Amino acid sequence: MEEVRIIEVKQSVFADNNADAERLRRQLKEERTFLLNLMSSPGAGKTTLLRRLADELRGRLRFAVMEADIDSDLDARAMREIGVDAIQIHTGGMCHLDADMTRQGLSELSSARYDLVILENVGNLVCPAEFDTGAVKNMTILSVPEGDDKPLKYPLMYETCQLLVINKMDVLEHFDFDLARVTEAARRRNPAIEILPISARTGEGVAAVAEWILRGVAEWNG
Amino acid sequence: MEEVRIIEVKQSVFADNNADAERLRRQLKEERTFLLNLMSSPGAGKTTLLRRLADELRGRLRFAVMEADIDSDLDARAMREIGVDAIQIHTGGMCHLDADMTRQGLSELSSARYDLVILENVGNLVCPAEFDTGAVKNMTILSVPEGDDKPLKYPLMYETCQLLVINKMDVLEHFDFDLARVTEAARRRNPAIEILPISARTGEGVAAVAEWILRGVAEWNG
Repeated sequence: MEEVRIIEVKQSVFADNNADAERLRRQLKEERTFLLNLMSSPGAGKTTLLRRLADELRGRLRFAVMEADIDSDLDARAMREIGVDAIQIHTGGMCHLDADMTRQGLSELSSARYDLVILENVGNLVCPAEFDTGAVKNMTILSVPEGDDKPLKYPLMYETCQLLVINKMDVLEHFDFDLARVTEAARRRNPAIEILPISARTGEGVAAVAEWILRGVAEWNG
Repeated sequence: MEEVRIIEVKQSVFADNNADAERLRRQLKEERTFLLNLMSSPGAGKTTLLRRLADELRGRLRFAVMEADIDSDLDARAMREIGVDAIQIHTGGMCHLDADMTRQGLSELSSARYDLVILENVGNLVCPAEFDTGAVKNMTILSVPEGDDKPLKYPLMYETCQLLVINKMDVLEHFDFDLARVTEAARRRNPAIEILPISARTGEGVAAVAEWILRGVAEWNG
């Protein structure tokens, strides 16, 4: 198999990340590329969901994935295995991506060729929520085994995202997890957040996530 | 119920956190207090394990818990409910604790009164591993639903810890999780790391974690 391309990104030289993120969004608007920033705890199922989404999105638009990790190229390889264009971004120990690090990845990917680029951010509920990557939309995954108190403990993540995917619904019966409690806590922080329960393992609910993305892409280009 | 004490800690004024952590360890040695730093992803089961450990440790030594969180006092309240001395540390958005933030918490707790203080660090596999808190030992929890690839993706966490607890073993059959694979990956990063599989929910294996802690406390005072 072709080697996975690994990009070692450097921390931003820009003092004002928010302004830089706005510049990046304007550039993406001109290129008609929709950048989606996917965040979660480690092990919530980001890569498994992306593999499922690839099946739903294939043939409907041109898309690629940027996998950000402290180390390893496991995730980019997992995407390449199923024929998805993917690069691995190494953050050099950094716990998040900022807009300039994201730009370095997009540049290596030649992002203007794609309608949709999904950035799989570093697995972390804290720092990635604090840095605007320049993405058009943000989504987060909360998996059932993590517990239903996460919106109370990591509020900024839920304020920053337009979509909350609840993953691993197939094991719901084995955990004390109250979907109504999560919904209430997340909406208290962010009344507009959409919530979609899924199982990335079984595929249940993934089509609704794909439709949410496709609507976002259509609006961005409209 | 008595109010939970919430400490808003400030970022360190010390440029050299490692030197400051050594100072804190010397102070703890003089006070005969063993500080254990507990780290994991959000939702791996830190607080549930601490509640179980309280049952094992009660009457065997004087101990207290410092709960660090971005927001909320859920964890300190959960400990106080079962009669454990606990304070809540708010990090003001910070994704980790450094030695001076830890010192501020210990000071509020009057830590010299205790043989053992357990610091429940912010739920995060990245940043807490980069900052020496001044703890005598570090432990991390990996829960079965997070997946067996975590030591490959977050290597510094496993290099930093003396004990790896594998939690949620009671749901092993519902997940693709290979204990041998985790063991091999963690030991490649850290050949000396001890690994204890448990279920904090059922209590299985928790006694072995308590014994590991009691041995550490005895050595520290020996």
